[in-house]
Amino acid sequence: MNEGKKEGSLLDKYGFPIWLFPLFFLVVVLFAACTEWDPQFGVDTVTTVGGHHVRKQVSNTWESGNVPYTMYMDAAAMCVLGFGFLYVFSKYYVWSGVSTNFFVCGFCFLWVHVAKAIVNAIFEGEFHKTKLNLNEMVTGCYITAAVLISLGAFYGFASLSQVILVCLVEPVAMLINEHIVLHYLHVKDAGGSLLVHCFGAYFGIAVVCGMRVRAEQLPETHRTTSYFSNMGAMIGTVVLWMFWPSFNGVTFYNDVTLQGRIVMNTYLAICASCTTAFATSILAHCGKLEMLEIQNATLAGGVIIGMICPFDIQPWTAVLIGGLGGVVSSFGYAECHPFLEKLGVTDSAAVQMLHGIPGWLGAIFAALACFGSNHNYMYSYETQWSTTEDHHRTRAEQFGFIILATVCTLLISTVSGLITGVLMNQPCCPRVDEKDMLIDHDFWNIEDIGHDPRIKPSHYNRNVVLKNPLPGSPIREMEAKA
Amino acid sequence: MNEGKKEGSLLDKYGFPIWLFPLFFLVVVLFAACTEWDPQFGVDTVTTVGGHHVRKQVSNTWESGNVPYTMYMDAAAMCVLGFGFLYVFSKYYVWSGVSTNFFVCGFCFLWVHVAKAIVNAIFEGEFHKTKLNLNEMVTGCYITAAVLISLGAFYGFASLSQVILVCLVEPVAMLINEHIVLHYLHVKDAGGSLLVHCFGAYFGIAVVCGMRVRAEQLPETHRTTSYFSNMGAMIGTVVLWMFWPSFNGVTFYNDVTLQGRIVMNTYLAICASCTTAFATSILAHCGKLEMLEIQNATLAGGVIIGMICPFDIQPWTAVLIGGLGGVVSSFGYAECHPFLEKLGVTDSAAVQMLHGIPGWLGAIFAALACFGSNHNYMYSYETQWSTTEDHHRTRAEQFGFIILATVCTLLISTVSGLITGVLMNQPCCPRVDEKDMLIDHDFWNIEDIGHDPRIKPSHYNRNVVLKNPLPGSPIREMEAKA
Amino acid sequence: MNEGKKEGSLLDKYGFPIWLFPLFFLVVVLFAACTEWDPQFGVDTVTTVGGHHVRKQVSNTWESGNVPYTMYMDAAAMCVLGFGFLYVFSKYYVWSGVSTNFFVCGFCFLWVHVAKAIVNAIFEGEFHKTKLNLNEMVTGCYITAAVLISLGAFYGFASLSQVILVCLVEPVAMLINEHIVLHYLHVKDAGGSLLVHCFGAYFGIAVVCGMRVRAEQLPETHRTTSYFSNMGAMIGTVVLWMFWPSFNGVTFYNDVTLQGRIVMNTYLAICASCTTAFATSILAHCGKLEMLEIQNATLAGGVIIGMICPFDIQPWTAVLIGGLGGVVSSFGYAECHPFLEKLGVTDSAAVQMLHGIPGWLGAIFAALACFGSNHNYMYSYETQWSTTEDHHRTRAEQFGFIILATVCTLLISTVSGLITGVLMNQPCCPRVDEKDMLIDHDFWNIEDIGHDPRIKPSHYNRNVVLKNPLPGSPIREMEAKA
Repeated sequence: MNEGKKEGSLLDKYGFPIWLFPLFFLVVVLFAACTEWDPQFGVDTVTTVGGHHVRKQVSNTWESGNVPYTMYMDAAAMCVLGFGFLYVFSKYYVWSGVSTNFFVCGFCFLWVHVAKAIVNAIFEGEFHKTKLNLNEMVTGCYITAAVLISLGAFYGFASLSQVILVCLVEPVAMLINEHIVLHYLHVKDAGGSLLVHCFGAYFGIAVVCGMRVRAEQLPETHRTTSYFSNMGAMIGTVVLWMFWPSFNGVTFYNDVTLQGRIVMNTYLAICASCTTAFATSILAHCGKLEMLEIQNATLAGGVIIGMICPFDIQPWTAVLIGGLGGVVSSFGYAECHPFLEKLGVTDSAAVQMLHGIPGWLGAIFAALACFGSNHNYMYSYETQWSTTEDHHRTRAEQFGFIILATVCTLLISTVSGLITGVLMNQPCCPRVDEKDMLIDHDFWNIEDIGHDPRIKPSHYNRNVVLKNPLPGSPIREMEAKA
Repeated sequence: MNEGKKEGSLLDKYGFPIWLFPLFFLVVVLFAACTEWDPQFGVDTVTTVGGHHVRKQVSNTWESGNVPYTMYMDAAAMCVLGFGFLYVFSKYYVWSGVSTNFFVCGFCFLWVHVAKAIVNAIFEGEFHKTKLNLNEMVTGCYITAAVLISLGAFYGFASLSQVILVCLVEPVAMLINEHIVLHYLHVKDAGGSLLVHCFGAYFGIAVVCGMRVRAEQLPETHRTTSYFSNMGAMIGTVVLWMFWPSFNGVTFYNDVTLQGRIVMNTYLAICASCTTAFATSILAHCGKLEMLEIQNATLAGGVIIGMICPFDIQPWTAVLIGGLGGVVSSFGYAECHPFLEKLGVTDSAAVQMLHGIPGWLGAIFAALACFGSNHNYMYSYETQWSTTEDHHRTRAEQFGFIILATVCTLLISTVSGLITGVLMNQPCCPRVDEKDMLIDHDFWNIEDIGHDPRIKPSHYNRNVVLKNPLPGSPIREMEAKA
Repeated sequence: MNEGKKEGSLLDKYGFPIWLFPLFFLVVVLFAACTEWDPQFGVDTVTTVGGHHVRKQVSNTWESGNVPYTMYMDAAAMCVLGFGFLYVFSKYYVWSGVSTNFFVCGFCFLWVHVAKAIVNAIFEGEFHKTKLNLNEMVTGCYITAAVLISLGAFYGFASLSQVILVCLVEPVAMLINEHIVLHYLHVKDAGGSLLVHCFGAYFGIAVVCGMRVRAEQLPETHRTTSYFSNMGAMIGTVVLWMFWPSFNGVTFYNDVTLQGRIVMNTYLAICASCTTAFATSILAHCGKLEMLEIQNATLAGGVIIGMICPFDIQPWTAVLIGGLGGVVSSFGYAECHPFLEKLGVTDSAAVQMLHGIPGWLGAIFAALACFGSNHNYMYSYETQWSTTEDHHRTRAEQFGFIILATVCTLLISTVSGLITGVLMNQPCCPRVDEKDMLIDHDFWNIEDIGHDPRIKPSHYNRNVVLKNPLPGSPIREMEAKA
């Protein structure tokens, strides 16, 4: 997030506002062109009764939408509070971690509605404005979640200007992939194992490849954690963990039977992954726990159950799959991630281990469940795998199509991520110097961090005349003793 | 929060409990005199069927009230968790920041119901008990939010006893203003741009004037932040940001069309202000971000859209207004606040920049929207600006009445705040010495803060016989090395 | 949580995974044997229409269940986020505090469903599978909350393997007690004053007796708090405080009249206890506040009102009872807890003062309310104290049965806790050495905590080649100055 050499060009210093302000006005214009209220919130609900204008209440949609409003809010909390605090784990990157995440939420929640109108126009051949309603807010959450996952792969070495580029491209790429998987391959993905988690993780890793940043470049002394930054990160973990059933279930609010099953399968899976992640971490670290695994691998159950959670599986199956997710993810953080870094795959916050691998594993489990079942109903959110008469598929065919969806997701995410990464390396985007990677100092007005001698008076007190501590002030006493 | 000279009179030391306990019993007595259950929760729901007493379920009100219960909870979370952690940003005032906020929530949530009965009696001429139900809990949140905003203006230099006085007076003043604006001027204010944010901010600033505390008095060395206190404050920011749509929408739960529009307009506005606040902060600070602006200015969209959010505006308008709020607030923190402090306006946490200015700006936007529209329906929560036949106003008239409401709010908040401030300076209220401003030490049992040599054993261990670290204890090893 | 001598046997080092993995597979098997979906989420909802399989939507249960879903989520947040962060108050036990709590939530949320099938079989004489639905998830929260309360009594000196044992035994003991109180004694307890809080507290204290750990053994230097760990603990306090009305009300979602009354009585009581706890703390500590009391005693209103909250009491009564709870609990932390420790009763986080004493006090208030009333309807969640014709009790009888329920709860919790404590001392369970009590170091890979010289490179950077800080790195500059 640090924008590099402060003595550099105007672009290096003010690159972010130079990019952001024109872009913001473009978004306002595109909003006027690409969005409109869902008719239920508009003027056409006014009728004239006895000479007076009377507003006709259109109650049912938002009201029925009011019940999942609480689930939407849980999902939004996961994006802003959950991911935000998960990213404060670094010792010197606390402020940038939570703030970059916050900025991405603000920007993507808006941009998604524009991106949707564009992608729909591409596939449908004609342009329709996006109708803003609770549904669209939920979509905004899902897509932003994928961008936030990608953020983890280049955590600590992308400037805010480079992050904007990701915010612009990834939602478009993700919506294209979603359209192909849902409407061409007819594969459903309730909790987004593939469409959100897997896509986000591999997009992020591909971005790093495109940026050509290697793990060895990250300054060793900066790449560390601290006691209290990890306490903060546990807020994120716990918020993500408890709200995960809402995240998987929120898109199904017009089908309460399935929603109930989704919520409960997800709940069982995250409980199981929490349990097994603790045990695996101790096994992998010679009897000690490792904080990064407790923060991340405990959540793997929610990812791995994402595609299979609306299926007609037994409770014990959900527990078993979730537990497996915890083992795989915890083992991944402990053993695979360091190994992959040696091989040259840079993944700063190891998002592949929480979102990537459990994501495609979840798809494979879903494919196997389809293949192994003797009835095809129950395996999608409509009664059958597909709604149209033309798509009465055999079990093997549906197995194949899920595998195909996985390959398609990996392909689109990797290619679009690579292109984005290369674009981010262009001179028009301020880059982060190696010495400023994973450290807040050069990008924030900071008063204290450890024993940084470069403390400057902040805005909070910069205009007050500096004077000595008052006689009797506790601070004075402290200094006297020191 | 520090109650001053510890060697002083009994009042200086025990002023808070001396004030609080009699007041608490007064509140209990006033509760008996001024409140009752909404009949739906009372004994009259029992009927006798076949010799048995059978409780008749009156389901619809609370159940329909159960849907906004989730929105009420979001608004309550903003008060306790949101504002509470926003106030931990100071380096030495973390405990007092969050705790004073917590105490105000506890006390005001109760006091509001009494204050409402009193104010209603003043205006209606006859006394009715306040009927306790979910509606009243929502009112409690709104009024408490204003008190919590005021708290920011004298953040760090009011004793708990002085805070009680604010808690007693401000809800009454605010309810009087609300009554005048809603029922005499017929101006609606869904999200409380004027009634909550503007009122709270200028009441607080007036209190500081009444207390005659100048910014130069605040000890320079105490008026600082730290890396982890700012991490904590981000919890508050993020919680306020994500729940703001619920705060603006909760009062409209019997009108789902408007509620939907409010939620979505607010959501668009806060996304926009988050985006522009980041860019403005970098512009204003020579390429660096300033934490106080990220914590506060990002929220300005929710304040500025407060009055206009139920209007029939287009989505792009909400984005534009919200974005403007972010720019104005961020610029205010960076440039106006220091300038005003030089002029002698003390506003410890700069609440004017987040709540004051965006508050009345929001009212002006609402007035302009009324003036510029060619239809008067859609601009209030009933179909028209006013419900009664007598109030068919022209566009220019409604414009004028909104401006009048703004002036009225500024007037009542300033006058009542000044009086409260003067009362707080009376000898019966323990004051905070200059040396104890913005620092927790003299008001808490604290074991460590930085290298404070005055560490005392806390309750947690004070009755355990002190002994040396055990052989092999990590602490002993640390000491050995030191 | 620290598992003792690292040079010890394999069991000392890997005791937790050795216990956990077989147990996890046992849970999976028991899940298959003891649980099933509530029929509304199962295959039998599919019918055949015109040759096609069509899934029949069973909308009403989960949908009506969807409204309390938000209350369930609040209760779950109290368990994971609320209790979790309440337990970070210790200076050196932050990570273990929040993580042990997290693990217990994951494990108990699963185990409860198995335990319920077993206990039901014991009392009913025949075996039924537990039907998983939202109801069961709520039950899971309630029982887990009791286990989390017990955790506080042996906070800091139980290994994770010992905690597993508590997780296995306590839900069974608690369900047995609940069955006796609800179905044999016909005493209702909406918010769990007795069944959750009182049971959890005295079970925990009995466990400590069984483990034979005395307060003097806890290393004095470890038994301390810090400025930022207490900031973290305030997150827990505030989350518990604001969600308490949902916790008390969630079990009554099929009776909206009572639920409304419960929510509002609880809300009044916690506001009152917040207010009085502040004042009592200052009185008890010679004019200073004590953080532990602000964190805990402010919540006592929610505990003490737990049994009486669905009663037909007046609002002022709820305020008075809640305020009394705050005074008693705050005084308990300040005076009784140190006194009891001298007497040899070890209660590491003083859970008796928040959950134990206010718990049985709440039951006594409920008994007195029954005795003092002139009508027996309104005093339970069905219209009368009991549903069946046989149980038309007099006021004195119901008074007696509530006292009996209190005695029964104290008895069962103490006896089962003692047995569990003795089992935890067996050699098969790794124990925590005295030198490792209340400190994270020997159980976690930790990079920094204060000035610990034993810092080791964590996983996060251990596979990156160590190199000197880059030229120009802020860290290098810091070191140069140091």
